[in-house]
Amino acid sequence: MDPAQAEAELAKGFSTIEVIRPDRSEGVYQVWLNRPSRRNALSLDFFSELPRALSLLDCIPSARVIVLSGRGPHFCSGIEVSALVATVPSEPADVATRSESLRRKILVLQDSISAVEKCRKPVIVAVHGACVGGGVDLIAACDIRCCEQGAFFQVKEVDLGLAADLGTLQRLPAIVGFGNAIELALTARRLYAAEAKQMGLISRVFSSPEDLEKGALQIARDLAEKSAVAIMGTKAAMLKSRDLTVQQGLEHIATWNSAMLMSSDLEEAVKASLEKRKPVFFSKL
Amino acid sequence: MDPAQAEAELAKGFSTIEVIRPDRSEGVYQVWLNRPSRRNALSLDFFSELPRALSLLDCIPSARVIVLSGRGPHFCSGIEVSALVATVPSEPADVATRSESLRRKILVLQDSISAVEKCRKPVIVAVHGACVGGGVDLIAACDIRCCEQGAFFQVKEVDLGLAADLGTLQRLPAIVGFGNAIELALTARRLYAAEAKQMGLISRVFSSPEDLEKGALQIARDLAEKSAVAIMGTKAAMLKSRDLTVQQGLEHIATWNSAMLMSSDLEEAVKASLEKRKPVFFSKL
Amino acid sequence: MDPAQAEAELAKGFSTIEVIRPDRSEGVYQVWLNRPSRRNALSLDFFSELPRALSLLDCIPSARVIVLSGRGPHFCSGIEVSALVATVPSEPADVATRSESLRRKILVLQDSISAVEKCRKPVIVAVHGACVGGGVDLIAACDIRCCEQGAFFQVKEVDLGLAADLGTLQRLPAIVGFGNAIELALTARRLYAAEAKQMGLISRVFSSPEDLEKGALQIARDLAEKSAVAIMGTKAAMLKSRDLTVQQGLEHIATWNSAMLMSSDLEEAVKASLEKRKPVFFSKL
Amino acid sequence: MDPAQAEAELAKGFSTIEVIRPDRSEGVYQVWLNRPSRRNALSLDFFSELPRALSLLDCIPSARVIVLSGRGPHFCSGIEVSALVATVPSEPADVATRSESLRRKILVLQDSISAVEKCRKPVIVAVHGACVGGGVDLIAACDIRCCEQGAFFQVKEVDLGLAADLGTLQRLPAIVGFGNAIELALTARRLYAAEAKQMGLISRVFSSPEDLEKGALQIARDLAEKSAVAIMGTKAAMLKSRDLTVQQGLEHIATWNSAMLMSSDLEEAVKASLEKRKPVFFSKL
Amino acid sequence: MDPAQAEAELAKGFSTIEVIRPDRSEGVYQVWLNRPSRRNALSLDFFSELPRALSLLDCIPSARVIVLSGRGPHFCSGIEVSALVATVPSEPADVATRSESLRRKILVLQDSISAVEKCRKPVIVAVHGACVGGGVDLIAACDIRCCEQGAFFQVKEVDLGLAADLGTLQRLPAIVGFGNAIELALTARRLYAAEAKQMGLISRVFSSPEDLEKGALQIARDLAEKSAVAIMGTKAAMLKSRDLTVQQGLEHIATWNSAMLMSSDLEEAVKASLEKRKPVFFSKL
Amino acid sequence: MDPAQAEAELAKGFSTIEVIRPDRSEGVYQVWLNRPSRRNALSLDFFSELPRALSLLDCIPSARVIVLSGRGPHFCSGIEVSALVATVPSEPADVATRSESLRRKILVLQDSISAVEKCRKPVIVAVHGACVGGGVDLIAACDIRCCEQGAFFQVKEVDLGLAADLGTLQRLPAIVGFGNAIELALTARRLYAAEAKQMGLISRVFSSPEDLEKGALQIARDLAEKSAVAIMGTKAAMLKSRDLTVQQGLEHIATWNSAMLMSSDLEEAVKASLEKRKPVFFSKL
Repeated sequence: MDPAQAEAELAKGFSTIEVIRPDRSEGVYQVWLNRPSRRNALSLDFFSELPRALSLLDCIPSARVIVLSGRGPHFCSGIEVSALVATVPSEPADVATRSESLRRKILVLQDSISAVEKCRKPVIVAVHGACVGGGVDLIAACDIRCCEQGAFFQVKEVDLGLAADLGTLQRLPAIVGFGNAIELALTARRLYAAEAKQMGLISRVFSSPEDLEKGALQIARDLAEKSAVAIMGTKAAMLKSRDLTVQQGLEHIATWNSAMLMSSDLEEAVKASLEKRKPVFFSKL
Repeated sequence: MDPAQAEAELAKGFSTIEVIRPDRSEGVYQVWLNRPSRRNALSLDFFSELPRALSLLDCIPSARVIVLSGRGPHFCSGIEVSALVATVPSEPADVATRSESLRRKILVLQDSISAVEKCRKPVIVAVHGACVGGGVDLIAACDIRCCEQGAFFQVKEVDLGLAADLGTLQRLPAIVGFGNAIELALTARRLYAAEAKQMGLISRVFSSPEDLEKGALQIARDLAEKSAVAIMGTKAAMLKSRDLTVQQGLEHIATWNSAMLMSSDLEEAVKASLEKRKPVFFSKL
Repeated sequence: MDPAQAEAELAKGFSTIEVIRPDRSEGVYQVWLNRPSRRNALSLDFFSELPRALSLLDCIPSARVIVLSGRGPHFCSGIEVSALVATVPSEPADVATRSESLRRKILVLQDSISAVEKCRKPVIVAVHGACVGGGVDLIAACDIRCCEQGAFFQVKEVDLGLAADLGTLQRLPAIVGFGNAIELALTARRLYAAEAKQMGLISRVFSSPEDLEKGALQIARDLAEKSAVAIMGTKAAMLKSRDLTVQQGLEHIATWNSAMLMSSDLEEAVKASLEKRKPVFFSKL
Repeated sequence: MDPAQAEAELAKGFSTIEVIRPDRSEGVYQVWLNRPSRRNALSLDFFSELPRALSLLDCIPSARVIVLSGRGPHFCSGIEVSALVATVPSEPADVATRSESLRRKILVLQDSISAVEKCRKPVIVAVHGACVGGGVDLIAACDIRCCEQGAFFQVKEVDLGLAADLGTLQRLPAIVGFGNAIELALTARRLYAAEAKQMGLISRVFSSPEDLEKGALQIARDLAEKSAVAIMGTKAAMLKSRDLTVQQGLEHIATWNSAMLMSSDLEEAVKASLEKRKPVFFSKL
Repeated sequence: MDPAQAEAELAKGFSTIEVIRPDRSEGVYQVWLNRPSRRNALSLDFFSELPRALSLLDCIPSARVIVLSGRGPHFCSGIEVSALVATVPSEPADVATRSESLRRKILVLQDSISAVEKCRKPVIVAVHGACVGGGVDLIAACDIRCCEQGAFFQVKEVDLGLAADLGTLQRLPAIVGFGNAIELALTARRLYAAEAKQMGLISRVFSSPEDLEKGALQIARDLAEKSAVAIMGTKAAMLKSRDLTVQQGLEHIATWNSAMLMSSDLEEAVKASLEKRKPVFFSKL
Repeated sequence: MDPAQAEAELAKGFSTIEVIRPDRSEGVYQVWLNRPSRRNALSLDFFSELPRALSLLDCIPSARVIVLSGRGPHFCSGIEVSALVATVPSEPADVATRSESLRRKILVLQDSISAVEKCRKPVIVAVHGACVGGGVDLIAACDIRCCEQGAFFQVKEVDLGLAADLGTLQRLPAIVGFGNAIELALTARRLYAAEAKQMGLISRVFSSPEDLEKGALQIARDLAEKSAVAIMGTKAAMLKSRDLTVQQGLEHIATWNSAMLMSSDLEEAVKASLEKRKPVFFSKL
């Protein structure tokens, strides 16, 4: 899709999220979870709107970095019970048919969360207040996680009588270590900001929701000034390497860079460095 | 094996461990390393009794959570030298035959430790005093690790002139990070409780052995009140995902949950949540 | 190559590094990055000299542990711009030919860094001052990382308009966690000693460059006194297990130890332990 | 999408393919490559229409089996040169940007071919005349391959100065063996029906295009009478197991069947077998 | 277990199989499927007796090769319907509990078949008449497959309304190619001896059941005269390599052979070759 | 190394092989196993000369295809007994040290064989007479295998009392199927040309050694006229994909082609096709 079309599509708006360009933030787009009255519970609409928004932003070269935030007092209260119930098929059909249908629905929800990783641009998430259940699945797929000091995290699925199935159990171990991840998932206990930072779940803790908002946007602006080819290649290489041996990962980035190093951004960076000035990168993706 | 048979087998007792039901702990069983005079050194008998005990507990639906503790002043002083020596075959045979025999014996010991992961119920380990060599192999296979502040951990195998082969080198990197793991394994230095917590090896540090005992049982009781289907599914999914790519892990839990979400526990959890009461889960495994 | 030949080769010296035997350190060799005027920038010569030096040391049984340090005020300022530019082929040829050539050059540089892992003896790195870009690629391949409190680390490649391709993106996630790694790689921010320790990148922080020098050598001397078979087997098993499932890693070390446990070092360790004396290990590799 | 909607969408037709229900073939749909004047060369439109058609058929329970055939004298002459040229970006942009754009376009074309595997229903392909280049990529993703005795196959990409990138190099080795696959891909030679059968590329060779048409439909009708849950599970399990170890594949199908065996189709099959009658399966997917 | 104990256990006999030492066949044991009146249908008893017999044979060094045959007119008619029905839990419990129970039962049956691979000694299977459903799962796990010209094979599970879950779908693709395997599994058609040989499923086709019996035992006697260390190492290396990359498989066999090459069998083979006589191997496993 | 240097090095000659440019074969080099009096047994010198020769040829752009043949009446009688004996360390040292040394020697021999795969240019092997033991390891690493009708193949290692460790057990299953491979490796039987062709080990059988010689060179000349970028990319992609999932392999070739499709060879191929003339490719690697 061409950028203008994508912009036009974005402009039509969404029912569960809002996508804006924050003031004076060249290259930065912000996606708001926008159902504050439901504490941004993740509804079926959300699961279709989020991947669509990210896919549109991916087509817009001037969208270089995405910030994900939540409206209202809490970032996210998890998957909405009605969405969960809608997922489980009603009685009549035979067990096999219901099971197959259920499996496909779960795969669709998973793909919605994985859209954050599929998006080539980095996604910075800013968490305030509660981030529970499906909210943790969501942030585990983001690239940089920040929060304010009142935030807490809870892998709450066992308390609903189920094993989490939207990515937390798969992504959290690589982020906080296997031991921390399984303890959080089994106990469903609250993890507060300081411990979350110490475990590696969170990169930066800000002292208030306001500072969080400013801080996350500042990180985003900094990334937006960097080379798009470099930023995107870094995100892609790390996600790809996660599923390969070290040697396979090295070979992958060598193949990738065999074209990417012929970028004019590298030339510009070298020139700027010799001329002792800030580089101005051109690559647009 | 049916539950009554398994209970009867358990009742016969063991020589190196003791299995009890702690007072007032519905659903919780405790396995004691029970050779305090040998600082709970792991003997050949232990390596056959532990997997048998866990396999029996796995057949008893009312055993929902297992706590592993050590009698006497130390949790575990590692593999007993006599067991180690018994493993290495004596001279006469040719090198190839001895080597093949040795390899099979190591695989048997490894399987004994891996029985902790194979057990569907979560295993909480409570470490006090020393946890050395084979003791670290053992706790690395547990699901939740607690200790008291006087506890220390030592990957001591290099000091015996060998590379650890019961799981520490394989499981520790995912728990504490690759850099920490290799440093501990090469230097064989003592790791104390506070740093162990900071590295992610330990989830909770208690201030005394008594508090540890109480605390570990309390965590166990909390888990025992949760949905068995949810707890077991969470453990299974995380262990399975450890060996798969993220995408394969997601597909696995989707297939798993395609049946498990048709559980009456989910229904009960949703109902209880609407009725603002504590859920009472029914699933028994 | 036999040890005497390897010693003779080493004695010829190198242009970008210096290899010495520090006083009174039986079994310890030290490799110095030795271009202090260029802040030890990694030149094309370095990329061929490092693997040659390590390969020679690997042939010398009395080299049991290697310490890697940097001369001058900084450990390493990263890949030299001239080396980077030399890598990228000049215009005339068609894009495919240039790309293929570029890819092969990257693979050569990667292999140079991976030589640290290929070396059977443990490599301890001591970082002071700046460790930037290619410097981080280098230390990520080492076995034990120490630094002094003024040291800082920077995954700086995005600021050169490229994705790091010498191993940082592949090795860092297993060391500091995936979340920390991607944040460091995207923001290119400085990571100081204390946070580096907390993340698991660094095992020990010393209070000054002098203490660092002494401390790193002391760790090396301690390792040099341990069983060579045990130390080398531990390094090999952990690197191999990194790319296997836990079960496959267990099977690998069982196969390995099926021969290695027939070592006289194990016998000596057991004897020494019974006789309550320090063991003297014989294995030489 | 619900079945009626999907049927309506299908009814709107396509420009490069035609989807029909062959006479008297309950449960069978046929997709025709429908540009005989271009020898069914694969155009950009085709690459978007094929996955859409398959995805619609996947939503229609009465579409139990799909037959893929080509109109005109040849099955498929490969990717259309104009599509290939459109893929390669024109000069102006810098190499890195062009390369990244090219990579994304290739991924889209690959996904189009992989849609055949993603479709849960089995796809039987019937090849007559030439099947060249992209045509081989396409049939390698199908489940059952038949041809008439005049058919031939050619992995022709090297003759276009490129390595095949739509799946042949990845899927062919598992089908015909690694040695046969690499020989075919390097030499670009023609492989005729008899040798194709002998190599395992083709399951059935018919003596004429007419017999092929009848024969492929007959196989399809036979599959359509079988249990949908069983057929789909078999396709899914084999594709999933292809990327897992044997042990992981076994565990996957055990998890899958833990729900699917509670199907009424199994009950019906057992009953029918006892009553010595043909079963009538109910599952609809 | 020591060899004498194992022999004594074997001597107690089994209800579904018979284990004998065929006349004049030093080192060869034969396991007969022994329910000819049920066409050797695989009952629950069989699934527990087969792994026990193989495990006992594995403890007896004089059992160097195992031949698996079927009594009566057919090799095996597949899993017994009553066993299948016993696997599927009856109604009362909730779906999740039933599903979890079912999954565990399938895993037990799978392990029973996999016991053929776990047995260190080679297993030669001799198929006459029908080999259907579970029979194909069984032979796919054997090492060498022979048949007589009247034999046929049928992956019949889809006709029972289910996807095969005892190993056929996982093991067959590596044996006959992915294309042949999926066609056989989807169509459930009969595969006769000649085509089975051509596909690589069968190594040798004999002209009658009598010749098959003689021929299979002759192959077994030939293997029994070879070096036990070599034969067992070959089986182990190939099964292990199946789940590794080529490079990992090479490293595995290098580690394995680092002990095994110090065998006296190699010495004897070299000596015998120089002395132009038949070697007499000593290794016993 | 630059081409002229490489040519000069090649001109110095080898003791176990001979490298020539056959008459009138633009772009083709031929490597002869050149110890006919020893039936081309593989000596330690061979294991160091082969990888050196291939590495030199890899630096010479005019060497586009390599043909590997054997002088004298047989292609190769396997690893020389003296080389094998030299590998196994003599008595004095302790078992662990000998084992570690042995392991490293095996890895070196393996790397020598793997050099055939590491060479970017395709290697066609022409087998006449016997190809036994190490000879099979060697040809299994080649890209295209031809033979004359009197040739035979024998995985003979078990008859030497050992499991093959130079690649046969790892590479053969993908070429001839797992069942055929394990049968050949366990029985050590002779496999003759016709069956070798039928199994997929051999691509072409010629009627005499003379025809084989001519035929192999003709295939080589045909490949030499094709685009170097395309041929090398095809070999690289297939070898890489062998160790990846299909999806990962697709992603790899997409990344690779993102640069390679900007080749002038593709342009030339398209132009030549429109102008109905033979393309003349320019890429040189």
